[in-house]
Amino acid sequence: MIDIQQATELVLASARSFGTEKVPLQECLGRILAQDMAADRDFPPFHRVTMDGIAILGEAYESGLRTFPLQGTQAAGAPQLSLNDKAGALEVMTGAMLPAGADTVIRYEDVKIEHGQATIVEGAAVKTGQNVHLQGTDRRQSDIIVKAGAPLSPAELGVAATVGLSHLYVQRMPRAVIVSTGDELVPVSAAPAPYQIRTSNAYTIQAALRQWGAAAELLHISDELEATRAELKRCLQAYDFILLSGGVSKGKFDYVPAALTDLGVKKHLHKVKQRPGKPFWFGELPGQCTVFALPGNPVSSFMCTQRYVGPWLRKCLGQPAFPGAFAMLDRDFHFRPDLTYFLQVRLYSDAESGRLMASPVEGKGSGDLANLADADAFLELPRGQDTFPKGGVYPVYRYR
Amino acid sequence: MIDIQQATELVLASARSFGTEKVPLQECLGRILAQDMAADRDFPPFHRVTMDGIAILGEAYESGLRTFPLQGTQAAGAPQLSLNDKAGALEVMTGAMLPAGADTVIRYEDVKIEHGQATIVEGAAVKTGQNVHLQGTDRRQSDIIVKAGAPLSPAELGVAATVGLSHLYVQRMPRAVIVSTGDELVPVSAAPAPYQIRTSNAYTIQAALRQWGAAAELLHISDELEATRAELKRCLQAYDFILLSGGVSKGKFDYVPAALTDLGVKKHLHKVKQRPGKPFWFGELPGQCTVFALPGNPVSSFMCTQRYVGPWLRKCLGQPAFPGAFAMLDRDFHFRPDLTYFLQVRLYSDAESGRLMASPVEGKGSGDLANLADADAFLELPRGQDTFPKGGVYPVYRYR
Repeated sequence: MIDIQQATELVLASARSFGTEKVPLQECLGRILAQDMAADRDFPPFHRVTMDGIAILGEAYESGLRTFPLQGTQAAGAPQLSLNDKAGALEVMTGAMLPAGADTVIRYEDVKIEHGQATIVEGAAVKTGQNVHLQGTDRRQSDIIVKAGAPLSPAELGVAATVGLSHLYVQRMPRAVIVSTGDELVPVSAAPAPYQIRTSNAYTIQAALRQWGAAAELLHISDELEATRAELKRCLQAYDFILLSGGVSKGKFDYVPAALTDLGVKKHLHKVKQRPGKPFWFGELPGQCTVFALPGNPVSSFMCTQRYVGPWLRKCLGQPAFPGAFAMLDRDFHFRPDLTYFLQVRLYSDAESGRLMASPVEGKGSGDLANLADADAFLELPRGQDTFPKGGVYPVYRYR
Repeated sequence: MIDIQQATELVLASARSFGTEKVPLQECLGRILAQDMAADRDFPPFHRVTMDGIAILGEAYESGLRTFPLQGTQAAGAPQLSLNDKAGALEVMTGAMLPAGADTVIRYEDVKIEHGQATIVEGAAVKTGQNVHLQGTDRRQSDIIVKAGAPLSPAELGVAATVGLSHLYVQRMPRAVIVSTGDELVPVSAAPAPYQIRTSNAYTIQAALRQWGAAAELLHISDELEATRAELKRCLQAYDFILLSGGVSKGKFDYVPAALTDLGVKKHLHKVKQRPGKPFWFGELPGQCTVFALPGNPVSSFMCTQRYVGPWLRKCLGQPAFPGAFAMLDRDFHFRPDLTYFLQVRLYSDAESGRLMASPVEGKGSGDLANLADADAFLELPRGQDTFPKGGVYPVYRYR
C-alpha cells in the first residue's frame, strides 16, 4: 500500500492538457485564459477628465486669473474640442477627452457659473493637472495586462471587455462521466425497497466538479459483467475522464476491475494509506482517458474527489495542483492508525489573528453522508503521529 | 456625507425576500435551501455490510468456531437472506443488508474459502459486530438533516438525493439589470473612436453577481433625458434590482438622478466617506425595486459591488450579510485622508500560522481597471488612522 505522497505523484503524472477553445466573454468566468491579453490602446486611451466641471490652462490660474469665459462644453463621447483662448474655459464632463490646450479640471463644486463666466470660489484648492487621468498612465498600448494561464475572475473579464475581446481562448475543460455501480442503488425519484438505497454519491461528486467548472454526466451500470464491459468501453472513448463510484472492492459482483483491465486501462495505484478512502484506485487508458475509481462510501468518495480529482483537474488546466490553503485546529484531536487522516472540519476566520480556524466535526465514519453537511472541509492530518494538538496547522480542502 | 457603517445600515435595511421556487436537484448548487430536509428512513436504512466477506454470528466465533459452511450469498440490492444455521456463514457484499441471524462480517482478506467452507485465517482479529453499519446509527427517520436557510454545497445535494428529493425549494434569486450610461461607451466588439471607450464595468459586475448565483442582464442607456426616463421606468417594473454604472455625478448630461426622482425612487444615501466609491448612491422604489447607482470608475464600481451589493443580496437570501473573512497586512501601509480605504490586495494562506495574508497591490487609482486583475480582494482599512502597520487584521472582500 502506498502513501498519499506517492499516490499524489502518480495521479498528477497523468495530468494532460485538453487543448483550448474560443468562448464568449460572458461565459468565461472561472475558466483558465489560454492567450495573453494586451492593451489595444493606452490605458486610458486619452487624457481623460475625471470630474464634472471646467477645464482651463493651469498657467492662467497660476498667473492669478479666477474668472474664465466659457467657450463651450466637452461632453463624454464627443470628439475633442480645443481651448483656443488661454484665459478661457470649457465645461467638461467625467469621461470626456480633455480639450486640447487645457491641462487642469476644476470641479463644479469649486466654481460659480453666471452669465457665461465661471468664477473659482474662494478657498478652492487648484493644482495644475488636477482631475485629469493622463493617457497611458495605467498601461501602455501593447502591454500585456493578463497573461495566459490566469484564472478568469470578474476583474479579468472587465479587462477583456475594455481591450475589445468579445471572445477569449481558454483551456478546454475535460469531459467527465460519473459512473455509479451497485444493484442496491435506485434513482432519486424511486421508492427504494428495504434493501435498496438511492444514488447519492454521483450528485455530490457532480456538484464538486461543477464548482471547478467541469460538467459531468451521470451513468448507472448494473452488476453484470457484459453490461459493465460494454458501458465502460463506450465511456473510455467518449469521455476524457471517468469517475467510478463503488465497484472496485473484492465483492463477487464487482466487475469493474476485470472490465477495465480487459479494455486496456493501466492501473497506476490501488489502495492508499489514508482514511477515509483507503480502497482508492486510479488508472488510465494512456493518452485517452483517465479513470478514478472512488470507494463507494459517500465520505470516502467525496474526500478522494477533493484530494485527487481536484488537483489532477487543476494540473490539467496548467494551474497549481493544490490551492495552498491551511487551517489551524481549534482543539486537540487524536487518531491512532498509521494512516493519513482526512478530518471533517467546520471553518471560520478569526477576526483577531486573521487565522483560518478548523473545528473537528467527526461524524460516524465513512458512511455518514449527513455529517458532510455539517462540515465545510477536510483537514489533512499526516501519518506518523497520533496526537494533533490544538494550534497545529494543516492543509485544508474546502468544498464551501 | 455618511460613513460606511451608516451606509451599510441603510443598504441592509432595504433587504427583502424574493420568495421561493422549486428547482431540480442538479441546478441547486450554491442556492439557499428554503425547506427542511428530513431523513425519510433511518440512516443507514438497514444493518448495512461495509466489507465484502462472510457474515456469521459472533457468538459462534467466540465459542471457538473457526470454520463455517457457506450457505449462500447476500448480494447488495437483494432482499435479505437469513443465516439459519448459527454455526454457518453467508457470503456478503459491501452495501448488502446484513442477513437475519448474523451480526458480524469478516472480510475476504481474513478468510480462506475451500469446498464450500470458509476458514478464518490465523491472526485475524474478529470482534462481534464488526464491519456492520447499524441501522439508524447516523440519523433516525424524521430527523432534520439540513435546515432551511442552509447554502447548498455538494454535501447537501448528496443528502437530498439520498432522501429522495429530486427537486428542492430554494430562495428565489432577485432579477437584476446592469445599466451603463455615458455616450463615451461603445460595445465590446466595436472599434472605438479616439474619444470613446468600450463598456467594461458592466461585464465585471455581471461576473461578480454570477459568482453569487445571480443572473443579470445588461443595458446601455444613452445620455438623453427621455430615453433615460423611459428605460429606467421599464427597468423599475421588470427587475428586482438595478445596478447603474456611472451617470450619477454632477455632469450636464447625467439624467439619471432626475429620472429616478421623477419615477418615485426614494434616495436613501448619496456619498460615503470611503475611497474609492465616494459618489455611491442608493435608493429604492419601495417594495418594488432596489437601485444601486455605482460610481463610473471601474475600481469604484467593483468595490461598491463587493461591499454593498453582495451583502445586500446575501441578506435578501436570509444569509449573514458579511462573509466574516479577515486578513493580515504583510507590510506597513499609509493612507492619509479621513476616509475608509478599500485597499486592493493579493491574498495567500500562510502554511506556518494558518493566517490569511494580504499584500497591498495599490494600482494607480480608481480608473486603473488593469490593477484589479493583479489583486484578489479589497481589504477594508478603517477611518481615523493613517498608519496601518504590518500585522494588522482587517475585513476582506475577495473576488477570486
